[in-house]
Amino acid sequence: MFQGFEAQSRPDQGPPRLAALRAIMAAEGVDAYLVPRADAHQGEYVAPRDARLRWLTGFSGSAGFCVVLADQAGVFIDGRYRVQVLSEVADCFTPVHWPEVQLVDWIKAARPAGGVLGYDPWLHSVDEVARLRAALPEFELRAGDNLVDRIWPDQPAAPDAAFTAHGVDLAGEDHASKCARLAHDLAADACVLTLPDSIAWLLNIRGSDIARNPVPQAFAILLKSGAVRLFAGAGKAGDILDHLGPDVSVADVVDFVPALRALKGKVQIDPKSCPELVAASLREGAGDVVHGADPCVLPKACKNVVEIAGAKAAHERDAVALVRFLAWLDDTAPKGGLTEIDVVRALEGFRRETNELRDISFETICGAGPHGAVVHYRVSEATNRALGQDELLLVDSGGQYQDGTTDITRTIVIGTPKPDHRACYTRVLQGMIAISRIRFPKGVGGQHLDALARAPLWLAGMDYDHGTGHGVGSYLSVHEGPQGLSRRSETALQPGMILSNEPGYYRPGDFGIRIENLIVVIDAPTLKGADDREMLAFETLTWVPFDRRLIDVDLLTRAERDWIDCYHEATLRLVGPRLDPDARDWLIAACAAL
Amino acid sequence: MFQGFEAQSRPDQGPPRLAALRAIMAAEGVDAYLVPRADAHQGEYVAPRDARLRWLTGFSGSAGFCVVLADQAGVFIDGRYRVQVLSEVADCFTPVHWPEVQLVDWIKAARPAGGVLGYDPWLHSVDEVARLRAALPEFELRAGDNLVDRIWPDQPAAPDAAFTAHGVDLAGEDHASKCARLAHDLAADACVLTLPDSIAWLLNIRGSDIARNPVPQAFAILLKSGAVRLFAGAGKAGDILDHLGPDVSVADVVDFVPALRALKGKVQIDPKSCPELVAASLREGAGDVVHGADPCVLPKACKNVVEIAGAKAAHERDAVALVRFLAWLDDTAPKGGLTEIDVVRALEGFRRETNELRDISFETICGAGPHGAVVHYRVSEATNRALGQDELLLVDSGGQYQDGTTDITRTIVIGTPKPDHRACYTRVLQGMIAISRIRFPKGVGGQHLDALARAPLWLAGMDYDHGTGHGVGSYLSVHEGPQGLSRRSETALQPGMILSNEPGYYRPGDFGIRIENLIVVIDAPTLKGADDREMLAFETLTWVPFDRRLIDVDLLTRAERDWIDCYHEATLRLVGPRLDPDARDWLIAACAAL
Repeated sequence: MFQGFEAQSRPDQGPPRLAALRAIMAAEGVDAYLVPRADAHQGEYVAPRDARLRWLTGFSGSAGFCVVLADQAGVFIDGRYRVQVLSEVADCFTPVHWPEVQLVDWIKAARPAGGVLGYDPWLHSVDEVARLRAALPEFELRAGDNLVDRIWPDQPAAPDAAFTAHGVDLAGEDHASKCARLAHDLAADACVLTLPDSIAWLLNIRGSDIARNPVPQAFAILLKSGAVRLFAGAGKAGDILDHLGPDVSVADVVDFVPALRALKGKVQIDPKSCPELVAASLREGAGDVVHGADPCVLPKACKNVVEIAGAKAAHERDAVALVRFLAWLDDTAPKGGLTEIDVVRALEGFRRETNELRDISFETICGAGPHGAVVHYRVSEATNRALGQDELLLVDSGGQYQDGTTDITRTIVIGTPKPDHRACYTRVLQGMIAISRIRFPKGVGGQHLDALARAPLWLAGMDYDHGTGHGVGSYLSVHEGPQGLSRRSETALQPGMILSNEPGYYRPGDFGIRIENLIVVIDAPTLKGADDREMLAFETLTWVPFDRRLIDVDLLTRAERDWIDCYHEATLRLVGPRLDPDARDWLIAACAAL
Repeated sequence: MFQGFEAQSRPDQGPPRLAALRAIMAAEGVDAYLVPRADAHQGEYVAPRDARLRWLTGFSGSAGFCVVLADQAGVFIDGRYRVQVLSEVADCFTPVHWPEVQLVDWIKAARPAGGVLGYDPWLHSVDEVARLRAALPEFELRAGDNLVDRIWPDQPAAPDAAFTAHGVDLAGEDHASKCARLAHDLAADACVLTLPDSIAWLLNIRGSDIARNPVPQAFAILLKSGAVRLFAGAGKAGDILDHLGPDVSVADVVDFVPALRALKGKVQIDPKSCPELVAASLREGAGDVVHGADPCVLPKACKNVVEIAGAKAAHERDAVALVRFLAWLDDTAPKGGLTEIDVVRALEGFRRETNELRDISFETICGAGPHGAVVHYRVSEATNRALGQDELLLVDSGGQYQDGTTDITRTIVIGTPKPDHRACYTRVLQGMIAISRIRFPKGVGGQHLDALARAPLWLAGMDYDHGTGHGVGSYLSVHEGPQGLSRRSETALQPGMILSNEPGYYRPGDFGIRIENLIVVIDAPTLKGADDREMLAFETLTWVPFDRRLIDVDLLTRAERDWIDCYHEATLRLVGPRLDPDARDWLIAACAAL
């Protein structure tokens, strides 16, 4: 099993660790100390070595940070983790609702006189430090060695797994070509890359340093010549030297900072993700630091034809696992006795039986009944719940395959749905269909489309408190930017971008509904009578039936009903032939016209 | 008649005027000179005295600017005026497509060596000048007296009409209360106001300095004490001294700059609209200039209950005029011989017969057949076109009434519609209905809703190249910010904001369709089964039937059809009793259920 179910936190460990941190803070003359859930690469997942926030506080969520003062320690968590944090941290920590309460306001209120604010400059971006500096003039910001590392006796070592090549048969473009075109457009003499998925994409390599995300923990410098200098833990790149070729030099990660200091000319960094330490090292040298977006981010987001073909293959393979899982669930759940953990285990099992699964793409969210309303619920032995009759089950999961990353959510009724279940499910489905069907002119960003997914709920006075969709990588992170479908997604959508389309509806303490397909942006097919203007559309990648017991056909427009029937027809055509007879029979029934 | 139909331009006048300007530029050592269509108040309409762009170039559009060099003169115009400019300016002017081509790029290409760039600091905002300065380091920006004024022998005088009081029975809040609450929130010792509609709103006054917009041309300084100093042309405020009361002092406009120089402490300006000259005058004095949004803009946009009641009364009155007009048109047009100008005259006549019309709120856009596709078409004797049989007629018009400003567009078929007319009209109407029906959570801005109005067109590969809606004032400008319904409208919608809702569709050389109602943001009525979250909705203000001959009922969803039937039922109920029998009979037929 990739997924584990042990509770990740022991709240009782927090107080002595906090006391130890405060002791070292006092010895160092630090009045406030920042402990983010971040590593030097600003990714969503961190290696065990970098799980400092969890080690110190017990809080195991995927986002948040702690600010330690002599008399208070605030754990800042967003809406997803308001409930979870309460059971994970001891009383010596104060949960703070973020972003409603901003770090700078909290810290000003807690220490109006200011003082020394300590931080590890590997873990905070240039922008972040600049914002803190501007907003906290009363504080001296002091960068230094990580104080948590100094009190963490059994801190795990940095990951040291070897990198692997991601062949051009999967990547669709060799890395020499990528390096050449990025270097051509580079308005600087060198560009520092610190995001692992940028480096993975640029050099066509993958790693296993971080669970769920096959990214290589490394740094790189792209030179205007098109040459690249790669910095990684000793020996990690040993297996891929042939793949990298003569234009990519490899050095130990300890050589990275000296190399930064030695850089000359204009050196570009992305202030949003570049660690402050990198910028400081450049400033110590002769380089002239310029700010610009990481040049890999946008081309990585726009998948090429080979990557899209890979995504389609991965999704059809994943759909076989999902359909077998749903058939199994329909057969097994009514007999009773199934728990959330049983469901997660079974689903991972079906994915493993594809013989192609490299990892799951994130911890499966499997919420029965009221657990479904916890948007990012992660089941553990402590929370495990039996599937109740006539309840909804929300399963959000994905797989990492060499040719693509998947992410799918289906909500299933165990037994007979209540009228409310059907009404809400149908509205969520209508929103998902609205995004799936739309075409739109070039220049439109996810922020402009998000409302289409919500309108059916809004009309009933309902909404959901998360974005409608996120970007998805190509055998990379299941959450990737810059594309997205939310009010914050300003990037214009471009052909090749893969996104999730996942509206939901949550009734706390009762049930949760989410329906998610992945979609890819395409040039809109020509249409008779259309304007002579360039328009885009979405093509669906995910082919797994919706639970027809939850669809209230009377609420649908003709176009929505037709869309569902076409979707089910295509699902049967694509997935049916790859199933054993029992699962195929189940699929035939699931895909019948409404 | 408010509206005139003479052609506004004589292209042959441009060349000698341009030569005269170049001569004075040479004498002053100015290499490039900016001639914007703007006055010191940055409004959409300008007084004849300030119509420098039109006088110099012949271009009569409502937005644009000219950059004069020794060997070139670029007239920058946006998409609305690409065609119009060609017939209005002589060959010595080069039309430039803006914003595709930016001023700074054009000027750099035209004069790579730089030089002296002259401008009138009353006519350019602080932000605008700062942007130019940053982007054009090769140029010396030189502020000075307006060079066009010096070569314009018969330049009209500044308008001198007296201001009038806008009573609390119309404004809903007396100006002392407005001044007190704005002063209370002011984070400065004084705030300079240069937008006429801000001053009109704050002091509950109106003016007639500018056609179509009953705003007073004036400047004001709001002090932290709540007192206001008003600066206006001599005697213009003479009639309203009693209304203004002791806390508002009145001075001649020539005293404005000395008063700025004498200000002490923190003085707030809005860099988006404040003339550079105002900021420069403050810098010459002892004031400490701080930037902040004009504090009147947001409260002005959120109409109070009295203003909303006034808007409803104005719209019902305006609807009587519109319905009588439509009945007349239906009766008269089939007989043939009607022209666009006849239609504009008739419509203004029906509005005048309300006996309440103070002005039209903008020049009526009345486009028959292919003229309908010119989004901001303004008919003149030169362009006047007969209404053709089986063609569409687009009429976009509005009235200024003391209790409210209206703006309505209806598209009518003269004779029998073609299938394409009906298909496109129905999609435009579906978009308008989508906005009218939606409810949405607080925090949503127009940028998030705009796509709802376009989705029915987008699905057919169609779109329109303008925003879906703009803010509308309360017996003030028909275009007001900050609210809007477009991809650029970031301001969160708030109760009381009045907006237009006007999707369209244009087939150049063939026909144009636009359907426009005004709507006001309200707290959404409670709804059974809804979430416990604050939501907003729109209430419709405009009650005039749609042309049922153009509605393809088969394309509508049940909800859309119900919405139209309810809308027509309400129209008949509200407007019917106020009509003479003939028009009432017409309305009864027009409002029958689909």
